[in-house]
Amino acid sequence: MIRKLRYTSMTNTDEKFCVQKTLKIIGSKWTVLILRELCDGTKRFGELEKNLEGISSKTLSIRLKELEKNGILKKKIYPTIPPKAEYTLTPKGQSLKSIISSMHEWGEHYT
Amino acid sequence: MIRKLRYTSMTNTDEKFCVQKTLKIIGSKWTVLILRELCDGTKRFGELEKNLEGISSKTLSIRLKELEKNGILKKKIYPTIPPKAEYTLTPKGQSLKSIISSMHEWGEHYT
Repeated sequence: MIRKLRYTSMTNTDEKFCVQKTLKIIGSKWTVLILRELCDGTKRFGELEKNLEGISSKTLSIRLKELEKNGILKKKIYPTIPPKAEYTLTPKGQSLKSIISSMHEWGEHYT
Repeated sequence: MIRKLRYTSMTNTDEKFCVQKTLKIIGSKWTVLILRELCDGTKRFGELEKNLEGISSKTLSIRLKELEKNGILKKKIYPTIPPKAEYTLTPKGQSLKSIISSMHEWGEHYT
């Protein structure tokens, strides 16, 4: 019985920790909405800014840098004039689609 | 072709809107962590406060009220001295388990 209780308690702590780690990466409204945009495919900065109504250039830039740092997306710069930057989900980023898709389904059915 | 493009565009807008609606309800770090606690079963205010290290009583109280207002949880008050309040997920709240569980799985594999 004691073993069972300890096991349950460890599992809960582990689970909490895993959820917290995920939240550290995607735990902001704009981050989730940026990821949702990139689930559709590669996008340019301007496209993201246009689609994410209400986001400031500064916030978009900060969120994209965080996501790049965390290995969620890749930035590709084209040496045009003016320079053009494109953002694409990495395989790690693609794996977040299940969370975005759960959110989509829930929003569709329950709100 | 025009019809296809229009359809795609509508679907993306719909999807964005659904994700946004979900974020309106669970789009804060503490809200997700409170829900994760309640996925394990009914909890008292004090238990939640103890398990959610770092949350203030005020924030916990505000988040619980929001979740109750949105039909995600039910509060049951027992007329003891001092009064005891218990929080349980409603069926609508239970349905959020898939999102929490996706977050858990992602955190486990990718961080």
